[in-house]
Order: sequence, then C-alpha cells, then structure tokens
Amino acid sequence: MKLFGSTSLLLSASIQVSAFTNIQNAFTRPQNTHALHMAASDVRVMVNGMPGPMATAAAEACIRKGLSLSPFAMTGPNMEEMSISVVDPISGNSANVRLIPSSNMDEVKSSLERTRSTFGDDSIMAIDYTHPSAVNSNANFYAENKIPFVMGTTGGDREQLMKDMEDASASAVIAPNMGKQIVALQAGLEDLANKFPSAFGGYKLHVRESHQKTKADTSGTAKAVVDSLKVLSGDSEYTYDDIEMIRDDGESEDFGVKEEYINGHAFHTYTLTSPDGSVEFQLKHNVSGRNVYAEGTADGIKFLSKKIEEGKGGKIYSMINVLEEGDME
Amino acid sequence: MKLFGSTSLLLSASIQVSAFTNIQNAFTRPQNTHALHMAASDVRVMVNGMPGPMATAAAEACIRKGLSLSPFAMTGPNMEEMSISVVDPISGNSANVRLIPSSNMDEVKSSLERTRSTFGDDSIMAIDYTHPSAVNSNANFYAENKIPFVMGTTGGDREQLMKDMEDASASAVIAPNMGKQIVALQAGLEDLANKFPSAFGGYKLHVRESHQKTKADTSGTAKAVVDSLKVLSGDSEYTYDDIEMIRDDGESEDFGVKEEYINGHAFHTYTLTSPDGSVEFQLKHNVSGRNVYAEGTADGIKFLSKKIEEGKGGKIYSMINVLEEGDME
Repeated sequence: MKLFGSTSLLLSASIQVSAFTNIQNAFTRPQNTHALHMAASDVRVMVNGMPGPMATAAAEACIRKGLSLSPFAMTGPNMEEMSISVVDPISGNSANVRLIPSSNMDEVKSSLERTRSTFGDDSIMAIDYTHPSAVNSNANFYAENKIPFVMGTTGGDREQLMKDMEDASASAVIAPNMGKQIVALQAGLEDLANKFPSAFGGYKLHVRESHQKTKADTSGTAKAVVDSLKVLSGDSEYTYDDIEMIRDDGESEDFGVKEEYINGHAFHTYTLTSPDGSVEFQLKHNVSGRNVYAEGTADGIKFLSKKIEEGKGGKIYSMINVLEEGDME
Repeated sequence: MKLFGSTSLLLSASIQVSAFTNIQNAFTRPQNTHALHMAASDVRVMVNGMPGPMATAAAEACIRKGLSLSPFAMTGPNMEEMSISVVDPISGNSANVRLIPSSNMDEVKSSLERTRSTFGDDSIMAIDYTHPSAVNSNANFYAENKIPFVMGTTGGDREQLMKDMEDASASAVIAPNMGKQIVALQAGLEDLANKFPSAFGGYKLHVRESHQKTKADTSGTAKAVVDSLKVLSGDSEYTYDDIEMIRDDGESEDFGVKEEYINGHAFHTYTLTSPDGSVEFQLKHNVSGRNVYAEGTADGIKFLSKKIEEGKGGKIYSMINVLEEGDME
C-alpha cells in the first residue's frame, strides 16, 4: 500500500503543529483529567490510511464490533479531501468519514477539536494503517494530542518509535502482527518449546507457505514458528532457506487458496514426521484476505479503551497483552 | 490385548510371595543402599506382557534406544514358559528373553535374584503392558521388590494404584498416555487456553478422528483437546457428541490411514474456522501403529533411571515430567 507517497509533507506538517498542539493541550487538559471513564461505546475511532485497503478493512471491523468511527480521519498528503462511506459487508452497518489529507494539519486539528467538543475530550482513538515512512511522525502526532492509538503500520524506525512513545507516556498497542490468533499460536509454540525442548526429538520438519506473488521475502510468521519447531524437534540443520515458498498463482491454488484471494493470502503448513514415518503432526494456518488483521486491530482498540478506563493508560501494550485480556466481545 | 485372561492367579501369586519378598529385601538391602549410581547402560529392562504386541513394541523401542533387556520377564499366568527373541526392525539389534508365567512367582523371584547378582542390585527396571486387572497387583510386586517401573497398562483401580505407590515410596512413571508428543501437544493446548481464553472467539470447531473399528468409544485425546479448543473459541455449544468418529475401514483409508494400519491407528484432525470463513487453523496428529507409545515408554525408563541416579527416586512421575526433562537420547 503506497498511499502516502510523499510522507515528508506529513512529517513536517506534524512538526509544524506541535507548538500549537502543546498550547491546545495546556488549554484542554483540565477537562481531560476528570474524564477518566471512557467506555468503548463513547469511543470514536479515527482510522488513518483510508481509502487504503488495510485501513478500510480495519474501519469495517470496528463497525462490525460495535465501535463508532470518528467523522474524520487522515489520508495521504497528496490525496484530495473526500468523504467516503465505510460499509461493513458482514453486518451491513455503515458510517460516513471525511478524509483530510495529512498535508492539511490545520484542518485535522480543528476537526479533532470539534469532535472532542461533541463527543468528549477522551473520545478519540486512532488506528494507523498508513505507510512505513509515516510511522514515527504519526505516532508523535497521536502522543502530542493525547490520542490513544493502535499502530498497525509496519516499518519505520521501530526502536525510535518505542522510545518516543515511552518518553511521551503514550497509550498505544504496537505490534508487528495484528492477527490475534496467529500471535496466540506463535506464543503457544514458543512456550511449548521452552517447556518441552526435544519433545519431538528426531522428527523431521517440513514447511510450506504461500503468499501473493508480490511478497518477495519468506513469511516472518513462518520463520518464528520454525524457530520454535526447531527447538521441539532438535533439528538444528533446518534453516529458513528450507522453507518452501509458493509465489505462483497456480501453485497457490493447488495449495488450497481460493482464486479471489490469490492476491492477498497467507497460507502456512508445518509438518513434523517421526523418524520411522509412523507419526505425523501437522499445523496449518490459512488466512485469506485482511479480516484477521482488521479484527485484531479493532480488538486492540477495545482493549486500549478498557485499559484507559481502568486507569492503566499511558503505556505501550502488545498483542500478547490483548490476548491475555481474553474476550473482547 | 487380552494376554492375561485369568489375572486373579497373578494377584494371588504376588500376594503369596510378599512375605518371602520382604525377607529377601531385608537380606539384600545393605547391598542396595550403596549402589546409588545407576547409569542407563547398567539397566536391564524387564518388559512384562510379551509376547503381547504393545509390550513387544516397547521392548523393541528399548533396544532401539540403547537399553538392555532383562534376560527374563513375566508373561500371562496361563501361558507356557517360553524363550523369545526380540528384534528391533529399525536398528536390527535383538535380545533373547525368557518369559515366565506370572503364576510361577517362585521362578520369577529366583530369576530376579540371579539377574541382580549378575548385573547389580539396582539393575532391574520394569515396563508393564499387561492387563487392566493386573495393574494393581503388578505395581505392588514392583514396589515390594524395589523395581522402578513404567506403567503403560491402563485401567485397574488408578486411585488405589497411586495411593499404594505413594505409601511404598515406589519409583515409577505412571501415565494414561505414553505418547510423549501427544502429551506435549495436549499440555501445550491446555496452557494456551489458560493463557489466552477466547483468543479464537467466534471460531467454529470441527473435529474428526479415526481409530481401528474395534475401538467403541470416542478418543480420550480428542476429548481433552476439545476441552482446550472450547475455551479458546468460547464455543460452549460444542459437545463430545459433535466429534465425528470414523470406525469404518474404507472411511479410515479416505482419511489417510494406510491399509496396514487399519487395525491400529489414531488419526485426529481439529479445525477452527473464523465466522466469515476467511481464516482456518488446523491441527492434525496422525499415529500409525504403536511406536509412538513404545518410544515414550522407553524414554520413561531412561528418565526414571536418570532420576534415581540423581537421588530423586522414591516418587511417582508423569509423562509431563519426562517431557520437562528434555532430550532423552
């Protein structure tokens, strides 16, 4: 998604407004402090990065999970201002959102003020599915404006991101993978490997993964799972290069991918076979489209809203924390 | 396996010899106490229940894993005394074992004495794959004669078994399932469910299992896994009755079972599907024949021998403990 082609504009815009931001925060803070109770129903989610497909899927998931969208959100700096209607195809519910180019931060700021005066000072939360080059500047903007956020955009300077957000005591969920169930699986296998190393001693490992053919590198999820399976099997000779990558439409379909998801899927099959071939363990996780990430992102918002309500804002959470919280419905 | 058709004989036999056993123990104990170091190479494994298929598979696994068999072992009370040659088909190694009917406990006892005088007082360990009705009496015999053992036989009075063995400070591995990798999987899923309940909230569960058609009931492993998957998916409506059982040779073959294992296999497939069908997680564990249980049993012997060597005998371990120990090779 190359939505924000020229993100230096966004960067300078957010820097330009920071002085103003601080003045505004000083002005509004007394009101903020008494508004400690923020139920998920009061939240207005600003989903930044629409009409990009990942941001749009996240906005749809928010609607599906009963969250309300903010009436405005940021779009790429070179985009025209526009109004869109976000329709969740599953529930049929919809919401209108005005998209403001991130190059027009004055307009973003005044929209933020108007939304806060209507729905409450703590009503706004953000989801970011923009562009790697906008990750750091956008996060700084959210922190300066006391907007709790879920960072779904990957890339940028992650170390700087964590440092900046900790320094700013920002309230955020930051994770490289928003697919909650996939994160759970990875964590579970890691635990198993720590607890029972060599439980599958002598077993042979075989891994195949299929992704849209535009994805050049090996799946990061596959690598993480392989790390754990190597500990379980004690198969030190298996390397990431042994992971079989499918990047061919026909082969992907043979692997079980439906035609409509050829350009957006993540299918993984891991097999452990005993030395004599009499025992086989197999794990598959097959993701078609973006819903699993979109829904994990919306769960991230619900989690963050709950944490802030409990007085546990001002810190950075991961998807593991979201998972530990349990049922988000 | 109905090897020990009339096990009341075995029961009374072991009770009859107990007075004698105590005398002998009193006599040999001074020698026993200084022999604290028992490396796995000094062990002679008495595999009781041969020529039954499960006991024989366990004996083969012992040979394969470098353990030595005791020159004698117990067989069913109504069997003729016989000598057999146990050949591990994988390594090609073999060992001769004289099988003594459990009705002739005098002969069992004198063979035990002879073996101990040759290989050391602490050399003998036992594996039990006999019959449910012999579980309690055999365990008492092992305890009285200071024979550390792995109880692979299921059934019997398990509560009494645990109580008797604790009272006797017996050294044993007792577990309902010796398939180490399957136990690991079950434990991992249980941990995952405890840690991340509802991580797969809304997902639909589907379970199919195939076993030899002589197995009437639903797989206990499938039930245990379903317990965890229900917590993960929050699908409270799924019951054990929803587990699809395959007990038909043709259907089993369609499910992937090879013809030669139609009469001895345990194939399981669990599938979790997201509400919109875009995400699928699938776990399979397919066991053909008895090797996975036989090898877990041999690992149990190695584990127990190590624990005794470390001065940690005199207690009951489970397969979870064996797994936690890590590499047994």
